[in-house]
Amino acid sequence: MLRRVHHINFIVRDLADGIQRFEAILGAPPERTDELAARGALTATFKLGETYLVLVQPTRADSTPGRHLAERGEGFFLLSLETDDLTGEAQRIDESGIVAMAMSTPRQGIKDWQVMDLRTGDTWGEQLQLIQEGAAGSPS
Amino acid sequence: MLRRVHHINFIVRDLADGIQRFEAILGAPPERTDELAARGALTATFKLGETYLVLVQPTRADSTPGRHLAERGEGFFLLSLETDDLTGEAQRIDESGIVAMAMSTPRQGIKDWQVMDLRTGDTWGEQLQLIQEGAAGSPS
Repeated sequence: MLRRVHHINFIVRDLADGIQRFEAILGAPPERTDELAARGALTATFKLGETYLVLVQPTRADSTPGRHLAERGEGFFLLSLETDDLTGEAQRIDESGIVAMAMSTPRQGIKDWQVMDLRTGDTWGEQLQLIQEGAAGSPS
Repeated sequence: MLRRVHHINFIVRDLADGIQRFEAILGAPPERTDELAARGALTATFKLGETYLVLVQPTRADSTPGRHLAERGEGFFLLSLETDDLTGEAQRIDESGIVAMAMSTPRQGIKDWQVMDLRTGDTWGEQLQLIQEGAAGSPS
């Protein structure tokens, strides 16, 4: 089963400016900032309740976040839903015959997170994904 | 302070189709469906962890959801953050000098929810709002 909204990502052009705005709204600084070279992004992660709110500044035009910024501008980027059985839930979704995963095996996210994306064509063009923290057998 | 991501709304053209998709993803049916005549929308409300995921089908082109659909298509519509001190948090945000509320007094949401929107120009064009359930002094 799915447990919670794990994180919600927003694309911004200028992370420092974005951090100022989110700090003013949320009333607290980010828990962490990261440079994700492989993903082509700088990120700032805020926590609200059980959910992370993440600002993502693309650092390359040819990255997934960079393409999103070019095509759709700043704003909502991604909704990530946590499960404790990533491949099982992905299989359940694929077997629905209504929506489908975009991949058959998990990819490595940041930290020890394992991720599987849904097909954006099945979700009104938006990126939705399943995520599992500390999945057994995850790459170190 | 802010407590949690209260709800996330997505605009869809066809609520029945949207419910099928979200049920397939979330593995559970909506908790409720509502017709919000004043808001010009049909909605389906799912619960995931402490957050509601809400599908919104506009019923009129001249409503806020209807305009969003016409201008930006289906997909992410609104992020709502819960507080137990709506006017206090709105004042804190306005005093930041960095972002500002779009209104100075709360408006009535569905059920007993009181809502105050932020200025979309301050949040990358996206709709963010503060919400308080069962606010003291709310209209009955």
